[in-house]
Amino acid sequence: MKYLNELAEGDRVSDIYLCKKAATLTTKNGKEYMSLTLMDKTANTDAKIWEPNSEGIGDFDELDYIYVSGDVTVFNSAIQVNIRRLRRADDGEYDPSDYLPMSPYDNDGMYNQLKNVIETVKNPFLNRLLKSFFVDDEAFIESFRKCSAAKTVHHGFVGGLMQHTLAVTRLCKFYTKAYTALDHDLLISAAMLHDIGKVRELSRFPENDYTDDGQLLGHIYMGTEMIAVHAAGIADFPAKLLSELQHCILAHHGDLEFGSPKTPELIEAFALHMADNTDAKLETFTEAIKDKEAGKWLGMNRPLGGNIRRTTEWTAEESDA
Amino acid sequence: MKYLNELAEGDRVSDIYLCKKAATLTTKNGKEYMSLTLMDKTANTDAKIWEPNSEGIGDFDELDYIYVSGDVTVFNSAIQVNIRRLRRADDGEYDPSDYLPMSPYDNDGMYNQLKNVIETVKNPFLNRLLKSFFVDDEAFIESFRKCSAAKTVHHGFVGGLMQHTLAVTRLCKFYTKAYTALDHDLLISAAMLHDIGKVRELSRFPENDYTDDGQLLGHIYMGTEMIAVHAAGIADFPAKLLSELQHCILAHHGDLEFGSPKTPELIEAFALHMADNTDAKLETFTEAIKDKEAGKWLGMNRPLGGNIRRTTEWTAEESDA
Amino acid sequence: MKYLNELAEGDRVSDIYLCKKAATLTTKNGKEYMSLTLMDKTANTDAKIWEPNSEGIGDFDELDYIYVSGDVTVFNSAIQVNIRRLRRADDGEYDPSDYLPMSPYDNDGMYNQLKNVIETVKNPFLNRLLKSFFVDDEAFIESFRKCSAAKTVHHGFVGGLMQHTLAVTRLCKFYTKAYTALDHDLLISAAMLHDIGKVRELSRFPENDYTDDGQLLGHIYMGTEMIAVHAAGIADFPAKLLSELQHCILAHHGDLEFGSPKTPELIEAFALHMADNTDAKLETFTEAIKDKEAGKWLGMNRPLGGNIRRTTEWTAEESDA
Amino acid sequence: MKYLNELAEGDRVSDIYLCKKAATLTTKNGKEYMSLTLMDKTANTDAKIWEPNSEGIGDFDELDYIYVSGDVTVFNSAIQVNIRRLRRADDGEYDPSDYLPMSPYDNDGMYNQLKNVIETVKNPFLNRLLKSFFVDDEAFIESFRKCSAAKTVHHGFVGGLMQHTLAVTRLCKFYTKAYTALDHDLLISAAMLHDIGKVRELSRFPENDYTDDGQLLGHIYMGTEMIAVHAAGIADFPAKLLSELQHCILAHHGDLEFGSPKTPELIEAFALHMADNTDAKLETFTEAIKDKEAGKWLGMNRPLGGNIRRTTEWTAEESDA
Amino acid sequence: MKYLNELAEGDRVSDIYLCKKAATLTTKNGKEYMSLTLMDKTANTDAKIWEPNSEGIGDFDELDYIYVSGDVTVFNSAIQVNIRRLRRADDGEYDPSDYLPMSPYDNDGMYNQLKNVIETVKNPFLNRLLKSFFVDDEAFIESFRKCSAAKTVHHGFVGGLMQHTLAVTRLCKFYTKAYTALDHDLLISAAMLHDIGKVRELSRFPENDYTDDGQLLGHIYMGTEMIAVHAAGIADFPAKLLSELQHCILAHHGDLEFGSPKTPELIEAFALHMADNTDAKLETFTEAIKDKEAGKWLGMNRPLGGNIRRTTEWTAEESDA
Amino acid sequence: MKYLNELAEGDRVSDIYLCKKAATLTTKNGKEYMSLTLMDKTANTDAKIWEPNSEGIGDFDELDYIYVSGDVTVFNSAIQVNIRRLRRADDGEYDPSDYLPMSPYDNDGMYNQLKNVIETVKNPFLNRLLKSFFVDDEAFIESFRKCSAAKTVHHGFVGGLMQHTLAVTRLCKFYTKAYTALDHDLLISAAMLHDIGKVRELSRFPENDYTDDGQLLGHIYMGTEMIAVHAAGIADFPAKLLSELQHCILAHHGDLEFGSPKTPELIEAFALHMADNTDAKLETFTEAIKDKEAGKWLGMNRPLGGNIRRTTEWTAEESDA
Repeated sequence: MKYLNELAEGDRVSDIYLCKKAATLTTKNGKEYMSLTLMDKTANTDAKIWEPNSEGIGDFDELDYIYVSGDVTVFNSAIQVNIRRLRRADDGEYDPSDYLPMSPYDNDGMYNQLKNVIETVKNPFLNRLLKSFFVDDEAFIESFRKCSAAKTVHHGFVGGLMQHTLAVTRLCKFYTKAYTALDHDLLISAAMLHDIGKVRELSRFPENDYTDDGQLLGHIYMGTEMIAVHAAGIADFPAKLLSELQHCILAHHGDLEFGSPKTPELIEAFALHMADNTDAKLETFTEAIKDKEAGKWLGMNRPLGGNIRRTTEWTAEESDA
Repeated sequence: MKYLNELAEGDRVSDIYLCKKAATLTTKNGKEYMSLTLMDKTANTDAKIWEPNSEGIGDFDELDYIYVSGDVTVFNSAIQVNIRRLRRADDGEYDPSDYLPMSPYDNDGMYNQLKNVIETVKNPFLNRLLKSFFVDDEAFIESFRKCSAAKTVHHGFVGGLMQHTLAVTRLCKFYTKAYTALDHDLLISAAMLHDIGKVRELSRFPENDYTDDGQLLGHIYMGTEMIAVHAAGIADFPAKLLSELQHCILAHHGDLEFGSPKTPELIEAFALHMADNTDAKLETFTEAIKDKEAGKWLGMNRPLGGNIRRTTEWTAEESDA
Repeated sequence: MKYLNELAEGDRVSDIYLCKKAATLTTKNGKEYMSLTLMDKTANTDAKIWEPNSEGIGDFDELDYIYVSGDVTVFNSAIQVNIRRLRRADDGEYDPSDYLPMSPYDNDGMYNQLKNVIETVKNPFLNRLLKSFFVDDEAFIESFRKCSAAKTVHHGFVGGLMQHTLAVTRLCKFYTKAYTALDHDLLISAAMLHDIGKVRELSRFPENDYTDDGQLLGHIYMGTEMIAVHAAGIADFPAKLLSELQHCILAHHGDLEFGSPKTPELIEAFALHMADNTDAKLETFTEAIKDKEAGKWLGMNRPLGGNIRRTTEWTAEESDA
Repeated sequence: MKYLNELAEGDRVSDIYLCKKAATLTTKNGKEYMSLTLMDKTANTDAKIWEPNSEGIGDFDELDYIYVSGDVTVFNSAIQVNIRRLRRADDGEYDPSDYLPMSPYDNDGMYNQLKNVIETVKNPFLNRLLKSFFVDDEAFIESFRKCSAAKTVHHGFVGGLMQHTLAVTRLCKFYTKAYTALDHDLLISAAMLHDIGKVRELSRFPENDYTDDGQLLGHIYMGTEMIAVHAAGIADFPAKLLSELQHCILAHHGDLEFGSPKTPELIEAFALHMADNTDAKLETFTEAIKDKEAGKWLGMNRPLGGNIRRTTEWTAEESDA
Repeated sequence: MKYLNELAEGDRVSDIYLCKKAATLTTKNGKEYMSLTLMDKTANTDAKIWEPNSEGIGDFDELDYIYVSGDVTVFNSAIQVNIRRLRRADDGEYDPSDYLPMSPYDNDGMYNQLKNVIETVKNPFLNRLLKSFFVDDEAFIESFRKCSAAKTVHHGFVGGLMQHTLAVTRLCKFYTKAYTALDHDLLISAAMLHDIGKVRELSRFPENDYTDDGQLLGHIYMGTEMIAVHAAGIADFPAKLLSELQHCILAHHGDLEFGSPKTPELIEAFALHMADNTDAKLETFTEAIKDKEAGKWLGMNRPLGGNIRRTTEWTAEESDA
Repeated sequence: MKYLNELAEGDRVSDIYLCKKAATLTTKNGKEYMSLTLMDKTANTDAKIWEPNSEGIGDFDELDYIYVSGDVTVFNSAIQVNIRRLRRADDGEYDPSDYLPMSPYDNDGMYNQLKNVIETVKNPFLNRLLKSFFVDDEAFIESFRKCSAAKTVHHGFVGGLMQHTLAVTRLCKFYTKAYTALDHDLLISAAMLHDIGKVRELSRFPENDYTDDGQLLGHIYMGTEMIAVHAAGIADFPAKLLSELQHCILAHHGDLEFGSPKTPELIEAFALHMADNTDAKLETFTEAIKDKEAGKWLGMNRPLGGNIRRTTEWTAEESDA
């Protein structure tokens, strides 16, 4: 595949790209044409279809993967593709990870692991509540599996929310073995549900930006409310259990100044906050040093609070010493 | 009325008090007796009924106003009333303001003023939403009218929540005249609803303390969720309007560090925060200097952030000058 | 009128502009010419008079409104006006609001309202003190009526200081009705005087920038000192009353970190701080969303502390529902 | 002298004490008596004159040093002196340092050193300004020489303000030699005047507490205003010089949060802040470890921000090593 | 065993206690006697030996476990034991956990687990460095195994430092599996060594208080220096590796304000900080809610930053639902 | 000397410059050439040697001072020197202060003053310790004399560390006379040693940047460790004295948030912090206003925390007034 950032004036292009935006416009002379934004993981590029009704131009919609054939020109010192032929691409023809940032972990695999965790939650109400989200609610599942965990900073890719949720759940599982004061079922349920509000806070890729509700209400409020709504649909869900679970969600940022309206008051809420923070910070660091040279300073990293670098690797001489 | 803090050993008492607590116990000899806590606005006093089954002892429950007749003794250097006769008091026999801290404003009067404000909200959805709380929901109205606005600090009395709500609403009404960018209906609705979560956060008098849900979830979350639930019962309630209203509630503490999970992003949310803060601070100051000598320093006042005093009053000589 | 931001190369211009700066210079060849900066509310534009002694060039000074006639050229890719004829404009020929940012409220109207407020202050010393500024001190009145309330952020226009002072005074007037613990005369006097130091802190338009004294001493100190000086001219002004009034001025930013050397210790000082903050924030918000599209996020606004947007407007369908 | 903290029931006392308070009261039987508070540097003690009109009781006023003779009894478990004879003490009879905390340095000596410093200030305006305070203004000089530099924390003794002023002035003198960018006359004048507002902020001993004006306005504002008033009495005092000097006073606490309405903007203002802070902290530390055992931890010291101890002293073995 | 807090006047006591302090004194009559402080986990109690040279009084030292027999009296309203017979107790006669707060985990078991972890560190320099502390340095091992992890707050018991070190090491081990960017050997070594400075910062039990060096230098500095010293004894220890390891120790408190002179700049330093914080907080919470009633609020907990409570336990009805 | 910032296209240059960087490269045609960076105190300039093996090109290394002769051209709109002849310059041929930022004080003079101060330290251990650095350790002395005190901000020049050390030592010497509680020998030793870790934290000029160890460990830790190592080489150095000295170094930034892992707990540590802060701030201010116009505002200065300006100078008219 020829990536969009490799196109040069005079090239002829014949490849599949994601159609991020498409609009039908009219020239000063009253002639219709289409203006598209093509996208892959390397760039966004402007494209035009000057003859939208010609035979070679098939039907398509925004966010379709499309096969395009045309010439590369330069307009206003920017690359532009003049499309002569276009058709929707078929599912097997392209690899989505060429077009969108994707979690390095398999989406089905992560989802199955999460579902398996539900079985370890024995409290019947919490078990049913988890299933009401992760097994029964198909719209939620679809969103949850595609959503990122953040606009930027960490896990900003398709599947990022699920990857983060799974990592936090595993840390919490480890905690329940090490700290016997923790209630396993409450903590594991809280871990799995802690960021579900993000499916309403962030729009799906390729946009991946704050929604209006995300900006006005935030995932902490929305996730807690979503739990209230689902729990209301489960007969006799104990009120105290619901309050304690909701508290864990409300308090998982750990401090008022980070947007939690309550600080952790239960040990499970504290543990969830620790797991969330640990995964967020270590993933942020991992992404920041990825592909960087060991031992070279990378400068101030805002979310990590300092100048960072990738650790020196252990050389052969050292290991043979 | 003889207040509890005036009782002395040897007195005979015949008056109405609030029965804060009542329990049936058994002496070492196996004899049943009752132990009560009598309360008025001056003190809590221990009382005993040694012959609970005697003819003079009528039926009653905790939190009833009861007429008691008996003798005052001292036990373990504390005053104790030995009750010989007891009956439930009738409504007209006592003045609740002798027993509980009460708003200086008439409860019915404040309630009617609030209801009148609803009529000025022309947006049909907001109008219906307000009525769903303040006109239709009797359990809510009962709680709202009796609730305080805070455990301590300010408006810590019966009717305090309504007094505060009314004062904030009036300030907001004034703002809508002075600042034309404000949306009247959104701001007035937000003002009336901003603290409704307190009916779940605080228990009723005479306890007036944080409930479990108040401690775990807080009135900001709970009030916002209550609006979600009521709005769900109104056909076609516009989603954007609901989000903007909920945002005002979530943001009304003005800053993350004061427990709002979002800072004000709409001008109405900012105005609500200003009105809430203004009434809270001026009422706190009013209560702090009440009955204090003008010109005398009262020392550090935590919520007001400094040493305060009542302003010197304008003397006759000054006015004649 | 043709605004300066509309001029294009080759235009011929014949209109009145504000002469912000004027200097007589000499070319390399020893010939005198004048370099001017013309200003209106849309732009600052360079202008030259190559024949300053020709008949068509009348007398004028910096900050005069001048009628100019000449040709528009481009020099160093910037627009330049070559002036051939020039004369001072007469008062009726132009509208100052075309040249400087102006309060949307009538200057005379605001001034008369302020003077009317003085009559409601019955304490003879405070009444006389207010008059010593707002009625007797013509130099002060002239400055006060033209001054902005800030270099940027809010009320950054001619009349802004008076508009802000009036708004704060009205809020305080409303407070005195709602909170009976407030001393009307002290609070209203403090409201009217709270920002008088700004006439020394900021230079007049078109400069509207910090003066040296503004930078070194600040309006809080200077305003408080101005009150000391005026009060010293009023026989028998009560020392306590003066201290309490000065305290209100010193404390009106509410917190040390915002430049008040004292936090509010009197309820009037607290009320003044609330009114000042309310008007500043709501005016800042109003100016920030003016002419912006409803529902569109405007990004982080520093003085307001967050991402903001103009509230969605209530559509017809909603109101008909 | 027998100190008040050494009195025991049954003692007979005949000594000179400071009469801190005196009031004439009436017993239940209608008989007049006087109630006094005697004070020395060790304690405050209650005293009574049951026969105020008897021959042995001479005239006296509050704050006089009085010779008293009487018996020590115990009333309500506190020591009480029943005075039988009383007279005003003469100046030579007592040593004030037995009664009030005093600076360890000679008051006349410190004052003369300060006056000598004035001679090194060559700028005629600053020189005259300094003399207008420290040479010409007798009421000011009297207050300045007796005032403490603080209610508690450091220099909380008679002469403390002068000792602190002299120490800060010496540090500044040293700075002017080490840092040539400093203007000697401006810095030395600012050093000498930086805390003059304290004569209005604190009452004289034995009270040594915040005055009303001290609480409402603070020494930073008042000292700066005092300079304005004195400078107004000096013909042609340069406005810029006055502003720069006043800025140094306003900014000498170094940061808004410590009560300075401006941060230091001139190098002299910064130097003054450093000198003030250095003397305050080192004197606070000196007073805190005085008479304490070397090497023993003294616990958290609020103004110094930590647990402190007196440094281990160098033993003979070490010096012989 | 009869605990010291159960002793009552008139009891006869014959049991083993820890002798915390012992001193030989002389009565006013010149007679020698001994004054002891006996200690168990419930109380410290004063004891006297009036006949120190009698036959029944054996040899012993401070901090010995001693068998004492005597009578319980009351002196100055405090319990006192008059010892008639005394001997050193043998090792098997008593259980140290009756006398000192002890880790609930077996000391030998924890130590062996730590030693086993060393085997998983393959880097020869780090492996040798760890052994130089945990295998070769007997004085260090002795201290490390007995030391607490803190004076109060969490792990304030014998073995606490080792328990905390082991828990942090296990968390880090788990991290190395979940986050592949982490260098296993560096992180595990840092985890095992992160708090070794505490053996110099805190004195051993029963004192368990800050040493002079602990107060002056702190465990972060001292631990880092200890590593420098040990590494200097290992031939060719790579300088970069040493710096990175020392950085992890210096930075493990995560932020300057918590006493780390550097914030984490390597991912291993960040991971160590997360693990340290997680174990400290969850152990603090565990200790705070131990033996407390579920669902009952325990009030503000300083280190945890809020009001806390033990989570409601899952009732039978819930699980059967 | 012709400075590099004066070079223009077409110039012929024949002068001595510092060779900051030098590399041998190969053209596309396989021909070897050299690329150099020439440096003086005005600029860094690119230079090429197209015939590196020609007779006129002598041997040299990076960081040598070299005499170059060649032509000035322009390449990619930047000045470039084509070198035809080159040789190492001899010591007397150039003045290093033309090439690197240099302290205005004589290096030998400052060093001799520091050595003289050692003689005033009578404690034999501290005296020996100081000599072990400043007299005996030639590598240290070489580094210390050339090192700057900071990468930027203040004393960022050759000799800056020594100039700062000397200034801090003099301030401390002055303190010991004014505050008798200070231990002279401890404070003077701490002053001289307080920043020695900077020789490891910063690389030498012309680089003058953070080293890896500087970034990972910091000068506070490294300087304290250097003292530990030197003290270990002095027989019987008293442990307490070493701890107190090390504490002064650890605490000299005064607060945790500025990177000191301990706050000052000894009066000498506090005094050192004050002296360090005073010199840093006054030197920063001095450098910031150097060569600036008096009375002109310079804008926000981050390290000084505000808008600053150079003080107005005293004009002749003022002095004659």
